[in-house]
Amino acid sequence: MNDLPKRIFIKEEGPREGFQIESGDIPTADKIALIDALAKTGLKHIQTVSFVNPARVPGMADAEAVVAGITPVEGVHFTGLWLNNQGFLRALETKKLHMEGKLTLYASRAFLKRNQNRTLEQQFAAQPELIKSYQHAGVPVRTGFVTAAFGCNFQGDVDAAYVVELVGQMRAIARDNGEDLDLIGLGDTMAWANPEKIRRVVGEVRAANPDVAISLHLHDTRGLGLANAYAGLQMGVAHFDAAVAGLGGCPFARHSGAAGNICTEDLVLMCEEMGIETGVDLEALIDCALMAEKIVRHPLPGKVKTGGSLRALREKLALGDATPVVAE
Amino acid sequence: MNDLPKRIFIKEEGPREGFQIESGDIPTADKIALIDALAKTGLKHIQTVSFVNPARVPGMADAEAVVAGITPVEGVHFTGLWLNNQGFLRALETKKLHMEGKLTLYASRAFLKRNQNRTLEQQFAAQPELIKSYQHAGVPVRTGFVTAAFGCNFQGDVDAAYVVELVGQMRAIARDNGEDLDLIGLGDTMAWANPEKIRRVVGEVRAANPDVAISLHLHDTRGLGLANAYAGLQMGVAHFDAAVAGLGGCPFARHSGAAGNICTEDLVLMCEEMGIETGVDLEALIDCALMAEKIVRHPLPGKVKTGGSLRALREKLALGDATPVVAE
Repeated sequence: MNDLPKRIFIKEEGPREGFQIESGDIPTADKIALIDALAKTGLKHIQTVSFVNPARVPGMADAEAVVAGITPVEGVHFTGLWLNNQGFLRALETKKLHMEGKLTLYASRAFLKRNQNRTLEQQFAAQPELIKSYQHAGVPVRTGFVTAAFGCNFQGDVDAAYVVELVGQMRAIARDNGEDLDLIGLGDTMAWANPEKIRRVVGEVRAANPDVAISLHLHDTRGLGLANAYAGLQMGVAHFDAAVAGLGGCPFARHSGAAGNICTEDLVLMCEEMGIETGVDLEALIDCALMAEKIVRHPLPGKVKTGGSLRALREKLALGDATPVVAE
Repeated sequence: MNDLPKRIFIKEEGPREGFQIESGDIPTADKIALIDALAKTGLKHIQTVSFVNPARVPGMADAEAVVAGITPVEGVHFTGLWLNNQGFLRALETKKLHMEGKLTLYASRAFLKRNQNRTLEQQFAAQPELIKSYQHAGVPVRTGFVTAAFGCNFQGDVDAAYVVELVGQMRAIARDNGEDLDLIGLGDTMAWANPEKIRRVVGEVRAANPDVAISLHLHDTRGLGLANAYAGLQMGVAHFDAAVAGLGGCPFARHSGAAGNICTEDLVLMCEEMGIETGVDLEALIDCALMAEKIVRHPLPGKVKTGGSLRALREKLALGDATPVVAE
């Protein structure tokens, strides 16, 4: 199958992923500046902060201040992440974020236990209450997410059939509670996917759920991020999470400093070059990536910010200017 | 088409690519140690040095000393690179390298002019003489290579039809001079390829040349290296050049420090995970990548050396040991 979409929709997670993992001394104003710059690139969905325990995640202690400082942009959804009701209420309280309810299941019992200290049965049981809490606040629940859908460092490989089963159960829970999911996210949380596995899992989930869209949350910890994204595109996937400059990282890698989410501008370049619309101004996004690198004060893994875009080269060549492309 | 090969053949170019671009103060003994370690990983073809002008490429001034120091390994071909007859004779003189003749054409006139100060007609005209020189030395000519086959920073996009034409001309030159090419290399020298373009160009070259194998020399300057490799695998490509740890770089990128060749261990992991044999011991190769990083004394772009292999995780999990995978 080769079913490339005409356009893709990117959820930019760089600010949240990146500033969460950094040591915590990044000025709030810098975070706001990056988010404001990202909002001018054409990205329509920017996850800005997470509302988590500041004692555990010092880099997010200023979540409310960051959100307060963002300049609203018509048509751009700024969102936040939370892991429990307390975080949800903090996000709601900002009165400034686009609120979306999300159901989450784990394809790895071991990772669920480790991450949330819950059994899968407890996780299932918690979803209706979560839905009620969203409904009470008037927040729609449209997305379901499967964590570790391709494998887990603490449990091993995950079967496609099991992911299909979880997605079915999640949709049933939503329906039983008066909601209808229209986007299913598959998370390669610990970078166990490979392109053929992406094709298999996406193919089976899609076959069983032809009425919902699929999104991919891919990590580049083992270098396969964009190859996996391409495999997803071939299977018609049009929704991707990504992080500008590759901000973020992976706490589960062999060594610290490993890559996290796939890099937004690298994904945008790949799509643009294949004729798939992204709605994003790549040059403006590259500027954001360079800004992100300055803010965190260490090299970030994205490649296009260093390699340069091809569109820029084509424009220079069209002007008869073939020289300015050598290393500056 | 999805025509994944059962196994691939890797030409390891890390030592030559890497030490060529480094500043030149790497001890000869370190280069030899890396090459000797690579030769024990299962890699069967290792390009070790280039025989070029030491005034222009100081990092390769010790080419003869490096080759002299390598420990021969049964079944492993150590090769060298040269750009002219003088370099070829130096390589021959070592009496230790596996000698292969190669014809090279450029899909970009602008790059050929810049790189070799030649017109395409001059480049064509030079090939028969080159073949005679190889024949005189008893060196077989089996490979043809197209530089900048997917696009060029100095000229722009390259049509698939033009690459097919060049390949046809190159094969004709070889035949007219008593040789028969059996491997056609396509070089994405300046990282203009994308996965769909790989499928198109490889597809057309393959359709016109069903009797030869195709190899891909891919650069990761814009982050698409492994996605492009996957697209090549889908088209049945079984020969890849790669560099351990992503050693090397790109002198034509927007900024210095850009990535060069695709990373060998990342390619090996991708193939292994998809059930494609590489003949390489990934854990031993990761050790080489970490060694390479120590030798050059700066971070190298390969991801698996930091992210860790999945096979190692599976083995630990099989032993009931789920803990040692968190950041060391």
